[in-house]
Amino acid sequence: MKATIKDIASAAGVSVTTVSLVLNNRPNTISQITKNKIVEIAKSLDYIPNHMAKSLVTKESKMIGLVVPDIGNNFFADLAKNIENECQKSDYSLILANANNSLSETVKYVEQFISRGVDGLILAFYTDEKQNNKEQLIDKLNNYDVPIVTVDSWIKGLNMPGVSIHHSRGGYMATKHLIELGHKKIGCITGMNGNYSSDRRLKGYTLALKEAGIDYKDVFVEEGDYQYNSGYLGALSLIDKGVSAIFACNDLMAYGCYQAIKEKNLKVPEDISVVGFDDLLFSKMLSVPLSTVYQDIKKLGSKATELIIDYIKNGISKQEFYRLEPTMVIRESTRKI
Amino acid sequence: MKATIKDIASAAGVSVTTVSLVLNNRPNTISQITKNKIVEIAKSLDYIPNHMAKSLVTKESKMIGLVVPDIGNNFFADLAKNIENECQKSDYSLILANANNSLSETVKYVEQFISRGVDGLILAFYTDEKQNNKEQLIDKLNNYDVPIVTVDSWIKGLNMPGVSIHHSRGGYMATKHLIELGHKKIGCITGMNGNYSSDRRLKGYTLALKEAGIDYKDVFVEEGDYQYNSGYLGALSLIDKGVSAIFACNDLMAYGCYQAIKEKNLKVPEDISVVGFDDLLFSKMLSVPLSTVYQDIKKLGSKATELIIDYIKNGISKQEFYRLEPTMVIRESTRKI
Repeated sequence: MKATIKDIASAAGVSVTTVSLVLNNRPNTISQITKNKIVEIAKSLDYIPNHMAKSLVTKESKMIGLVVPDIGNNFFADLAKNIENECQKSDYSLILANANNSLSETVKYVEQFISRGVDGLILAFYTDEKQNNKEQLIDKLNNYDVPIVTVDSWIKGLNMPGVSIHHSRGGYMATKHLIELGHKKIGCITGMNGNYSSDRRLKGYTLALKEAGIDYKDVFVEEGDYQYNSGYLGALSLIDKGVSAIFACNDLMAYGCYQAIKEKNLKVPEDISVVGFDDLLFSKMLSVPLSTVYQDIKKLGSKATELIIDYIKNGISKQEFYRLEPTMVIRESTRKI
Repeated sequence: MKATIKDIASAAGVSVTTVSLVLNNRPNTISQITKNKIVEIAKSLDYIPNHMAKSLVTKESKMIGLVVPDIGNNFFADLAKNIENECQKSDYSLILANANNSLSETVKYVEQFISRGVDGLILAFYTDEKQNNKEQLIDKLNNYDVPIVTVDSWIKGLNMPGVSIHHSRGGYMATKHLIELGHKKIGCITGMNGNYSSDRRLKGYTLALKEAGIDYKDVFVEEGDYQYNSGYLGALSLIDKGVSAIFACNDLMAYGCYQAIKEKNLKVPEDISVVGFDDLLFSKMLSVPLSTVYQDIKKLGSKATELIIDYIKNGISKQEFYRLEPTMVIRESTRKI
């Protein structure tokens, strides 16, 4: 038979409210002796598992919150999985929320997680130029009394540690690879304008063109949203504008490019070269394996976890932002023009 | 400047502990008048967002917990995304945990979510024959005082509503498709033995063979774990045993089969036909688009959300389990022998 909170109260000789206050670790004025007694009884009646009993003594929840912009994107699903594994190694649990690509949703979940007592938060988020109250949201994120670090993401004004791939260097490598193959009319499909990773990847694209003395053309840059369909639509438009190569700012959009190129009765890479960004598991399994910029998601996840646990345990002295090096992976979707 | 709990306490003329008890919605003996006053002040000082203020009055957290076995598997990532969207429509937030394919991890997260005050839980879980304390875990799940429903998953003895695809019918369709193409030596790569969806899919495979008068052979069934690599290893073994077709119990393992077949210098479907299960987004983008059993993840997510919200709002009178119909999607990975 399952023990109830009433059983514990009666065994401890205290009220149900007192037991609830203690077991839920809420502010109270109950003596430490009574608290220990209640926790011991709860444990002995199998009312709470050991790790919870422990956290009642340490005042930690041993719980970290992770908010991602789009769990349907494999990059974030893999990142979440890696962060979960890393958290486990340090005896933390991870709870997750999906913010649907919105910074205000991100902040909403941050508040919920904080009110549920997480020890710290890891944030990956998107934002774009259309986001309202951006400054107010950044201000909120800067001022919570709970450790927060970012992963993959950044926004001007944010005041916390973080880690991401070196996005602009990745964009530079992808574009330079195409330039070295002789391409001059190189289209780019970005994420949302104003989003950190996308703006940085575009910056790398622009830099590589400039270095090679190729004029940057506005019409060769299509704004996408990191989803498959925006890659498809962006590619349809770029093909009509006569590009010979496309740098899609993530692999999902590169997959969309394949579809557009196929529908136009053209071929990858014979007619159009395509480069992606992420190196998802599937990119090597495509009909034409995708050349792409590899992000070490494992390292990204372990660094983010290390940062938040260090922050929780030791506080921080400086706002460091770490950048991991990307690698160019050349497969079969790019070739000499 | 950011309001603190002290500001609220001083504005309301009460102690910090009182404010904390009220804003965290913990058991207390504070009068409703004081409670309302504290919530109003907290709102006016922008200390808590409106939806939280509301939940303090309604006593609901408006939060649903979802535990999945493997967020790195696209099926569960997509399912989580769909459930999140459905929850939003009904003004619920979703928090998520990844249980690393373990039933005891699932129960651990259920307890954490309950102790954090979720209104209800949706569970997708794996288990296998090696899981310890299975009965004890089931017993725990049956006895929490919080509404729980399952999605995609089931285990004998569990006493709650749920929804899944009709797994055995899906397995039957996949195998029957291969039989109709003339295959007789049909291998099967399953998930973990003892796992609900996998056992049911295998049952469908067995039934289709029996119906066609083909002997079931133990050696043609390889136990996998729903991961890419187990599909690869299972296929290597099945190829050596001379099968002409493989039914992989999910798409990820079917992708692993492709790799094994390629390494053996054979071709899909010329030498070996392959059928998957799930119809992930990528399955139509493979070098050889995959024939597979389609699961309507959107419907699965919306039904699970409907079940849990109904349970939260109205309680339940019966333990119904809903089965959605699968569809066979025939692409290019299967052909006549």
